[in-house]
Amino acid sequence: MINETYKAMLGGKSVIRELSEYATARGKEIGYENVFDYSLGNPSVPCHPDFTKALIKMLEEKDPVAIHGYSPSLGITSVRHTVAESLKKRFGVDYKTEHIFMTSGAAGAIAHAVRCVTKPGDEVLTFAPYFPEYNEYINKTGAILKLVPANTENFQINFDAFEEMLNENTAAVLINSPNNPSGIVYSEETIKKLADILTRRQKEYGHDIFLISDEPYREILFDGITCPYPGAYYDNSLSCYSFSKSLSLPGERIGYVAVNPKCRDAEILSVIFGQISRGIGHNCPPSSIQLAVAEVIDKTSDLSVYERNMNLIYDKLKELGFEVVRPGGTFYIFPKALEEDANAFCMKAKKYDLILVPSDNFGVKGYFRMAYCIDTEKVVRSLDVLEKFVKEEYGK
Amino acid sequence: MINETYKAMLGGKSVIRELSEYATARGKEIGYENVFDYSLGNPSVPCHPDFTKALIKMLEEKDPVAIHGYSPSLGITSVRHTVAESLKKRFGVDYKTEHIFMTSGAAGAIAHAVRCVTKPGDEVLTFAPYFPEYNEYINKTGAILKLVPANTENFQINFDAFEEMLNENTAAVLINSPNNPSGIVYSEETIKKLADILTRRQKEYGHDIFLISDEPYREILFDGITCPYPGAYYDNSLSCYSFSKSLSLPGERIGYVAVNPKCRDAEILSVIFGQISRGIGHNCPPSSIQLAVAEVIDKTSDLSVYERNMNLIYDKLKELGFEVVRPGGTFYIFPKALEEDANAFCMKAKKYDLILVPSDNFGVKGYFRMAYCIDTEKVVRSLDVLEKFVKEEYGK
Repeated sequence: MINETYKAMLGGKSVIRELSEYATARGKEIGYENVFDYSLGNPSVPCHPDFTKALIKMLEEKDPVAIHGYSPSLGITSVRHTVAESLKKRFGVDYKTEHIFMTSGAAGAIAHAVRCVTKPGDEVLTFAPYFPEYNEYINKTGAILKLVPANTENFQINFDAFEEMLNENTAAVLINSPNNPSGIVYSEETIKKLADILTRRQKEYGHDIFLISDEPYREILFDGITCPYPGAYYDNSLSCYSFSKSLSLPGERIGYVAVNPKCRDAEILSVIFGQISRGIGHNCPPSSIQLAVAEVIDKTSDLSVYERNMNLIYDKLKELGFEVVRPGGTFYIFPKALEEDANAFCMKAKKYDLILVPSDNFGVKGYFRMAYCIDTEKVVRSLDVLEKFVKEEYGK
Repeated sequence: MINETYKAMLGGKSVIRELSEYATARGKEIGYENVFDYSLGNPSVPCHPDFTKALIKMLEEKDPVAIHGYSPSLGITSVRHTVAESLKKRFGVDYKTEHIFMTSGAAGAIAHAVRCVTKPGDEVLTFAPYFPEYNEYINKTGAILKLVPANTENFQINFDAFEEMLNENTAAVLINSPNNPSGIVYSEETIKKLADILTRRQKEYGHDIFLISDEPYREILFDGITCPYPGAYYDNSLSCYSFSKSLSLPGERIGYVAVNPKCRDAEILSVIFGQISRGIGHNCPPSSIQLAVAEVIDKTSDLSVYERNMNLIYDKLKELGFEVVRPGGTFYIFPKALEEDANAFCMKAKKYDLILVPSDNFGVKGYFRMAYCIDTEKVVRSLDVLEKFVKEEYGK
């Protein structure tokens, strides 16, 4: 009597995960330092030391019953308040405590947001290239994820395709900027145009269309650019955040949804999120971790390594003749493969112990993703290998 | 376009939560020390000091990238191994690492277990009195929770009613011993009889019936008794555990499901649980908390206060003429009210600032629950108030 739907999922192993496991196994054979593993988006820098200090201080000085006690199901009130104040100060949106709901990372945030603003059968549009786990987060709610084809020129939004796909059943649009896997940051022009279209279509269809914005890479920005905050441009917006990347705490599963105060029923959405938690048996992220991130709310890990790595890789890729859009942030880059079949391309790279992820699963054919959240020293060594691979296999 | 199902849940506030909020508000008026708040099952003792020490040591000495890094979605392998070894040693069931899945407390464990072994429309039977949140955990999976009436004589199982309610659609049976709200521990005789019936019915219906066992109070036992471990008596069993009560870590949301190695498809169930997590956006409990509980796996907080409180309350209730079954564990007691309408009884008690929870929500009429996870000093003071209340209102 095992649920067949879930049993069927056992076959569908993530390509990224498989490559990462291969890299680990290969590392055991030849030494992990000799495997150039660009598969996993796992932060390589330590958390901010003040996070560790805050947590230790709390453990040493505070009443254990208080710091390990039940969090209210919407999150610890003081933590929600701290988040609201920080967002208000940084992005000029008038968040209050009641608009913040603490979650198990961005994954929990997105899954809650989609459950809240869709009913089974509704459509959620997202844009290629995209993070393939969205399929799980969205489709398991009963809503249906639809993929808008990529604008491969610059990986901003393909608005023609988007306008064509929007329809009466569209309940939400899910964006991710800075973007995994392209590293692209949506321009203000893109966000404004998106907001205009959604506003128009809401009116046309006579119902809300929510903008769900997945923002774990918000603080990892290059070349001094800023990332437009979608919540500042569109009222019916839900910002989904994780401290995984900015503070290098991916295993602590801590994030939030920030409900735009101007969105429909803004005052009750967090309460509904709490009800959703009851139904999945997941009641709020760990109390002590909530309290500790609140202590370092506006800090980040030292994220400079990612920009350093990006510059090295981008320059080398250009030198080798790759077509590639310069990332504005994240720790990903998304070049065009040197043959049509990205899988074949990545299989050839694998022979050089260069672990690249083919783009098919990200919703675009013919590209590959490199997750450069690894030591710069290793990046440098990998570039010679990349050159060797390209020369030997493609005569470049 | 807010999901109407979840919106409708906004009305359904928990009675326990409401009473607890009343107690807090009343405490602000007259001083919380004067409110005898028996509403919430929130551990009152600190976590074991070794938990705090282990966590601090880890934070001070270990690589932050490792301790805050992603946990595999089934839980950190070494932690799962530690749990398996501990259970094997304590209960004689041959668990291996692969049978353990780390969860967000017992709530996450139960919700995953039910999602795994039922399909929408299947029935899950549980026994009154029961924890009312089961309605959320079970019904939101699409399965249907059915309540077997209580055996009010001793709060063991009402087997006649159970046998009558079992049917071809029964996919799982959910038990909770030591029990919230009765405090009763199922005897070995009860567990054996339950296992016999399930074995027989599985054969009759030609399909598995899983026994899902909710065990957060497993270590809180009185009068030197032991609690029979259900997994040792029935093969198709899933043990759902939380460290919330034994280690006083309710806010850290850490627990597990232990899949009986003899159960159907035992080797793939944890993997299916992992797939379920993907669909709800909840990927495993926090890494650092997983690692820290593994360091104190066989330890508990000092739980003796609960037995001390139970003895004081039980003796007083008996002295005052209450019908009450002596709890074998937990921090709950479940006496019969002094009038048929438990709500009216508890409303009268409230006038004495004695906060008791009426039993209706636990699936039995005419009783009330006292959660005596409070200071003994306060328990002692409350007993005079209880006596006054009973004498004045019921002339006893």
